[in-house]
Amino acid sequence: MVYIGIDIGGTDVKIGLLDEDANILAQGKTPTGVGGSYQDMIGNMADYALKLLSQIGYTLDDVAAVGVGVPGVASNITGVVMRCVNMQWWNIPLREEMQKHIPKPIVIDNDANLAGFAESICGVSADTGSSVFITLGTGVGGGLIINGRPWSGHHSAGGEIGHIIMQIDGEPCTCGRRGCVERYCSATALIRLAKEAAIEHHESTLWSVSDNNLEKLNGKNIFACAMAGDETAVAVFDRYIHYLCLALSSIICLLDPQVIVIGGGLSKDGPFLLNAIQSRIKGYLAFPEVPYAEIKIATLGANAGFIGAALLAKQMLEETV
Amino acid sequence: MVYIGIDIGGTDVKIGLLDEDANILAQGKTPTGVGGSYQDMIGNMADYALKLLSQIGYTLDDVAAVGVGVPGVASNITGVVMRCVNMQWWNIPLREEMQKHIPKPIVIDNDANLAGFAESICGVSADTGSSVFITLGTGVGGGLIINGRPWSGHHSAGGEIGHIIMQIDGEPCTCGRRGCVERYCSATALIRLAKEAAIEHHESTLWSVSDNNLEKLNGKNIFACAMAGDETAVAVFDRYIHYLCLALSSIICLLDPQVIVIGGGLSKDGPFLLNAIQSRIKGYLAFPEVPYAEIKIATLGANAGFIGAALLAKQMLEETV
Repeated sequence: MVYIGIDIGGTDVKIGLLDEDANILAQGKTPTGVGGSYQDMIGNMADYALKLLSQIGYTLDDVAAVGVGVPGVASNITGVVMRCVNMQWWNIPLREEMQKHIPKPIVIDNDANLAGFAESICGVSADTGSSVFITLGTGVGGGLIINGRPWSGHHSAGGEIGHIIMQIDGEPCTCGRRGCVERYCSATALIRLAKEAAIEHHESTLWSVSDNNLEKLNGKNIFACAMAGDETAVAVFDRYIHYLCLALSSIICLLDPQVIVIGGGLSKDGPFLLNAIQSRIKGYLAFPEVPYAEIKIATLGANAGFIGAALLAKQMLEETV
Repeated sequence: MVYIGIDIGGTDVKIGLLDEDANILAQGKTPTGVGGSYQDMIGNMADYALKLLSQIGYTLDDVAAVGVGVPGVASNITGVVMRCVNMQWWNIPLREEMQKHIPKPIVIDNDANLAGFAESICGVSADTGSSVFITLGTGVGGGLIINGRPWSGHHSAGGEIGHIIMQIDGEPCTCGRRGCVERYCSATALIRLAKEAAIEHHESTLWSVSDNNLEKLNGKNIFACAMAGDETAVAVFDRYIHYLCLALSSIICLLDPQVIVIGGGLSKDGPFLLNAIQSRIKGYLAFPEVPYAEIKIATLGANAGFIGAALLAKQMLEETV
């Protein structure tokens, strides 16, 4: 049987077909079409999934179940996406609409939860009973695996590491509040720190690496300046690692997982980031004498979302049979 | 059969004997004896438990299992208390030593985890699949119940809500770090805020209620001043509720439990505290349009620790049989 995994993003929908052993049989992507009706958007992604299926010689009869990840709050109990700002979706009956095109069991969840679940099954945190997945990208996402099971929360709204408050009345966040982890630990936050520092330090290579246009700063070129020893970039990187270690120490205090998996855009320069965290995290722990989580870089990359969606579909089916 | 629950505190050890249906057959307390050898301390509490047992006509043969809670980090895998500052215990073989006196299966865990577990079985969060227990006392403790099971962490060091960082480089904490939730949300923090405000406002009833000795301020008399409408005390209380709602919003973002249970000293003025939180928490949520945790006051009071210890002993036995 085949499991369809669908990972809805703000730009593209990534879709993969997995077999019983979690091998990827086919994968591809199609534009999300934000701005269209939800019926058109969901119809388009379902059609694309069915096209992929026929390309490898399968039909709807071969599909066991479907998993769908969304960058927002989605309830698997009701099948409804309650909130998804990127998609401009509020209370969208995703499962019902998708089943018009693919009449199979469908499980839905948050995308970061699914990516974390994928890593815990066939990625860097495989065979661990508990792990916390954290994505460092435009925002900060998270997924929790506890006692071997994904935990999305009672109202399907958990795992939002990016919205833990780490500064009382701090930086304004896109969520309307202030001081969220996302404002200090995302790639967006790193870029903000770098811009502010570059404006103070015209001698910094942060200027040359961005062709004197600070809008071109990104995680990759900021890390490159720091790696090359630029004093301003090193200070920015140190400040960023300080914030990140504070946030990681909060996760360790509260959840004490076996592994913390770091994914998202900034994890692509894995060793540089990981070395910095690993060499400093112990100094940030409340109980430094007690063993604590291993910190690792995610290995499934951009495929993690659809892999996790397909795997959760498989798990759901196994548990209901 | 009888289950012995032992709740070790800095001053007293509370001990209760429970039957199969979680009824308390007997209970009492004995001084902890901090400063003595761990062998003497553990021997004393075991003797006291055995004395309680004989007082109600039972013998060691009637004991099925023992649960022990400690105000620190205790591993049920090794049976060792890794860290317990109040007791001056580091790497103490609690289970091994206790079994010299009570040769029965013994489970050990953190005291707040056990109190939260007790509330989730026979207290205010009974019959819920997920709950977070938070104690507002000298410090801030926590216990997590996820998918119906207590989660103490992979290294037995989880649930430490009090040491989530809520202020970058903030108030110094007893753990050696800065900005921990405990520094803003404990009774100690409330008292600190009240002292600072009273010094600025000599007209406040915070002075009369403490006989002009601010060392006599406590949660109860500060709340009383605020309830009576003293302007300074109301401002202190509002500030405290602001901090507490920020911390609760972080728990909701990350764990999205079905219920949050508030225990500890400050919960004794339950309705006043609870009304303030319930009327304001929605304004602190990242996703205010999504349903969120019910917030309730703990009901088991000071017995929660030994009840949870006995219940976990029972659960352990049921799962190993």
